[in-house]
Amino acid sequence: MSGHILALSGGVGGAKLAAGLAAVLPPEDLTIAVNTGDDFEHLGLTICPDIDSVTYALAGLNDTVRGWGVVDESWRTMERLGALGEESWFNLGDRDMAMHLARSWRLRAGESLSEVTARLTQALGIGPRVVPMSDAPVRTQVETEDGWLDFQHYFVREQCRPAARAIRFDGTPGAAMSPGLAEALARPDLAAVILCPSNPFLSVDPILAVDGVRDALAARKVPFIAVSPLVGGQSLKGPLGKLLGELGRENSNAAIAAHYAGLLDHLIIDESDAADAEGLRAMGISVTVAPTVMYGAAEREQLARVALSAARLG
Amino acid sequence: MSGHILALSGGVGGAKLAAGLAAVLPPEDLTIAVNTGDDFEHLGLTICPDIDSVTYALAGLNDTVRGWGVVDESWRTMERLGALGEESWFNLGDRDMAMHLARSWRLRAGESLSEVTARLTQALGIGPRVVPMSDAPVRTQVETEDGWLDFQHYFVREQCRPAARAIRFDGTPGAAMSPGLAEALARPDLAAVILCPSNPFLSVDPILAVDGVRDALAARKVPFIAVSPLVGGQSLKGPLGKLLGELGRENSNAAIAAHYAGLLDHLIIDESDAADAEGLRAMGISVTVAPTVMYGAAEREQLARVALSAARLG
Repeated sequence: MSGHILALSGGVGGAKLAAGLAAVLPPEDLTIAVNTGDDFEHLGLTICPDIDSVTYALAGLNDTVRGWGVVDESWRTMERLGALGEESWFNLGDRDMAMHLARSWRLRAGESLSEVTARLTQALGIGPRVVPMSDAPVRTQVETEDGWLDFQHYFVREQCRPAARAIRFDGTPGAAMSPGLAEALARPDLAAVILCPSNPFLSVDPILAVDGVRDALAARKVPFIAVSPLVGGQSLKGPLGKLLGELGRENSNAAIAAHYAGLLDHLIIDESDAADAEGLRAMGISVTVAPTVMYGAAEREQLARVALSAARLG
Repeated sequence: MSGHILALSGGVGGAKLAAGLAAVLPPEDLTIAVNTGDDFEHLGLTICPDIDSVTYALAGLNDTVRGWGVVDESWRTMERLGALGEESWFNLGDRDMAMHLARSWRLRAGESLSEVTARLTQALGIGPRVVPMSDAPVRTQVETEDGWLDFQHYFVREQCRPAARAIRFDGTPGAAMSPGLAEALARPDLAAVILCPSNPFLSVDPILAVDGVRDALAARKVPFIAVSPLVGGQSLKGPLGKLLGELGRENSNAAIAAHYAGLLDHLIIDESDAADAEGLRAMGISVTVAPTVMYGAAEREQLARVALSAARLG
């Protein structure tokens, strides 16, 4: 293939495909722009869960059994924080903590999130550029019967229990694209945009809410390929199914495609959802049916190849 | 006994006697005011080594084998910080980290160091009041052939190798006593001030440099008892012997007593230095000769009783 690939990623599922793309592409051909709407300030630390998921997956440090965080993790600081009377609902592992500490002090010292992310991913030997969607703080908030909740309060503290009525991205409009995302979108050699399998409402919409992203994607001259986050009509993980219902959407690939109307060329759906293909094609979306569950490196790389091939680059 | 005891403490040695006093006195009868000249900002954390030494000793969490920090410690965050290219010369244990995180975010949120210290010591079930010498930042700096070094750079990073020419306490004059120290000094029922065995130049002088402390001690109407940090003419730990030479002082109890001239009533010296007693008495200092090496709880409590007895309170 030739040309540059821009991957857009949310959390754990997106990070797996990002790692697959990193495994099959030369590092200079890949930019991974990551959702920062999940970021939050906690115990004085700036925590960027999706950037960390991508970073750990690309560095081979992700815990594949627990499904999030760093492999071989321990929780000794957390245990003492509890003993000191501090909040302990958000689990901060001892190995993971180094990332939060390094990022937080450098942000406070004046580095941008892009600069810090470049520094830390390079320190871990990651080749492709990993960039935040924006250097400005964007904070996803979910309206529930209890009022507006910050994302991590909704997602981790409340375990997505309250019914969601609406979602907003505090800081948008007004959040500029990060230099790395703007640069990737403007590259003359941009060959495709690949949307990794991530929650459309919680992980992708914040990226689309960043100033100029939706317009740039709508005006693009290259294929825009998404991998559906649904498998057998359900999300593998996280609150997507519940959210789709609460927000009055159908729990289907048609609803996913409709959500990206005007942007998407091609949707990769899981083989368990092969029956959805015809309806999607009737909506003007081209479809690839493929295994999308990524158990390990082999499936990640295979799905990356399927996505590149859908862009006629594989 | 009756009345309130004010103990002044530096690091590990001081913390041991503070723990001894805490074991033999009712909690409401003891205030421990701690040196904060060693405090520093590192990786975005406010680290207060002497407050932590006292806190861990009083909570029974101190590591008695390593001699500093928390018992049953691990260094998993530290190891990852190194992998991320961050400074790793100052060891931050995983259990210890909780203290730095809790303190740092609460200071940043606007609590004073006194408030944070009260909160964290109470969370650990510590009865006596542990207070910083001041809520204003005071930073000990050491002049060496390489110029002025921040204390932890001199002490930990450079392992006290450069010869010291002078010591200063950045932030003084101008640093007010903490409310807890001011209150203890002003108490009508103050019965004695006990100076724990700590380095005069590095641990005690910063306390004496806080606005009003030296004057209040000089004007006191109660006994001021010090436990010498020397054992057999040497400091048990730390750079005191080296510093005494570099700063042109004798390595002796007479030099310690001379350093506190006009303040001290009574010096407790180790039985290995019994020969110093006569000279000290000639200087007008009353002397108790006693075992001052605190291997464990028994020796800590015994030395606490000796100090209280020297104040005619035991």
